[in-house]
Amino acid sequence: MSFQSRLGVISKKHDSLLCIGLDSDVSKLPKHLEGLENAQFAFNKAMIDATHDLVCAYKPNDAFYEAYGVKGMVQLKLTVEYIRHVDPEIQIIFDAKRADIGSSNMGYVRYAFTELGVDAITVHPYLGREALQPFLDQKEKGIIVLCKTSNSGAGEFQDLLAEGKPLYRIVAEHIANQWNQNDNCGVVVGATYPQELAEVRRIVGDMPILIPGIGAQGGEVERTVRAGVDETGGNAIINAGRSIIFASAGEDFTEKAREEAKNLKDEINKYRSA
Amino acid sequence: MSFQSRLGVISKKHDSLLCIGLDSDVSKLPKHLEGLENAQFAFNKAMIDATHDLVCAYKPNDAFYEAYGVKGMVQLKLTVEYIRHVDPEIQIIFDAKRADIGSSNMGYVRYAFTELGVDAITVHPYLGREALQPFLDQKEKGIIVLCKTSNSGAGEFQDLLAEGKPLYRIVAEHIANQWNQNDNCGVVVGATYPQELAEVRRIVGDMPILIPGIGAQGGEVERTVRAGVDETGGNAIINAGRSIIFASAGEDFTEKAREEAKNLKDEINKYRSA
Repeated sequence: MSFQSRLGVISKKHDSLLCIGLDSDVSKLPKHLEGLENAQFAFNKAMIDATHDLVCAYKPNDAFYEAYGVKGMVQLKLTVEYIRHVDPEIQIIFDAKRADIGSSNMGYVRYAFTELGVDAITVHPYLGREALQPFLDQKEKGIIVLCKTSNSGAGEFQDLLAEGKPLYRIVAEHIANQWNQNDNCGVVVGATYPQELAEVRRIVGDMPILIPGIGAQGGEVERTVRAGVDETGGNAIINAGRSIIFASAGEDFTEKAREEAKNLKDEINKYRSA
Repeated sequence: MSFQSRLGVISKKHDSLLCIGLDSDVSKLPKHLEGLENAQFAFNKAMIDATHDLVCAYKPNDAFYEAYGVKGMVQLKLTVEYIRHVDPEIQIIFDAKRADIGSSNMGYVRYAFTELGVDAITVHPYLGREALQPFLDQKEKGIIVLCKTSNSGAGEFQDLLAEGKPLYRIVAEHIANQWNQNDNCGVVVGATYPQELAEVRRIVGDMPILIPGIGAQGGEVERTVRAGVDETGGNAIINAGRSIIFASAGEDFTEKAREEAKNLKDEINKYRSA
């Protein structure tokens, strides 16, 4: 079954487009978890226990794990295994933003899909389709390509006009028309750019769009949902990280996280159906 | 001391612009190393012992280590430590091709420069300078930005014309004129594109250019050297990986690698001085 199909199954089962970004920065973990041997995993486990029925996906960002070398990599692996244990239908998006020449990409493919066993990975478009073919060959995995990123300086290159249109649109067109032969592509567009999100949605049809930038980064929910969903009101993966997982730094961190997640899920659904 | 200064010291000491790419694909290691507990490191150690006096830098590509998860990460760490042990002046370029939004990049910075302790890292330009600031803030480290990559399909986006010139030139200009406030930037241009290499050299002045694509990927030495060096005949880091490290799959693999490395170093120097 394709990533997109699996995403549809879990989105329907949980009535949710919410993805929680497990950006579990060690320096921000609740004090009472400090000193635990696997504090980062303990935090994620608590977070998953508190929110798994509310989400379609979890998105661990590799940077927060790789930062601590082998120890961090172990936390990430434990986290992926735990999500699988709790609900194997929840999609796991490895936010790794990788991309190299073809022969090197085989290594990243192996790590993501054999070692870790995730459902999807984010990749940079800069080297082009020919380089990314080892990713694109993974028919049952989601290959989610950066298009218009959520950061304030995203436009430096992404908004450059080429062939009369901004680069991010050309990237979206190439992905929709040339890269997606295996129906396994997705794109990343930040919630901080709702107009660009609407443009990309028109280009990519019903392709999954991963939309970070809600919450801590300032993206508005209503505009994001209206711009981001497809004609069926789905295929948007709306990610919030810090605003949920660090909603409280106290002993009530799981309750507060669940509250935030529930509110955001419901708010998203309000605008989906309207 | 800056990365560029350190590069100058070792290039002079070893009279070499040669960088060896430690792309130590486990499936290609000599048969007699199979079954060793740390076969990948054992291979790298032998390679370093055989070639360290011939190089200015080693460039391990993360994909070949990350492929094997924790085990691979350990091999990489052992490799970095061993290069430091053999000659602390040899520059270590972590070919990781990372780039995320700013808060996430902090994690990649920590891994590369605190956990691993390398001298330089390769990064994607797509998210722009604002996102890459955590890398650019590392004054004593080299931040080497992908500009024109060595793969055959590199032009898909990199050659798009914007503002009347190809994207890779705009990237090179931004790096030279805006990103390099700390004099710590470098760029990547493939040896497979000697004309573009010459153009980028004109744009970036004496900035270090990392030039992969010699050897297995087909770049020609003479054209690469003439196009790639700066006015002093330096600041080019000419990388060969597979053509050196896998020169032989037999018990003579270190001798053959040394032979290849010596020949390439000498050939590079021939055209440097001409």
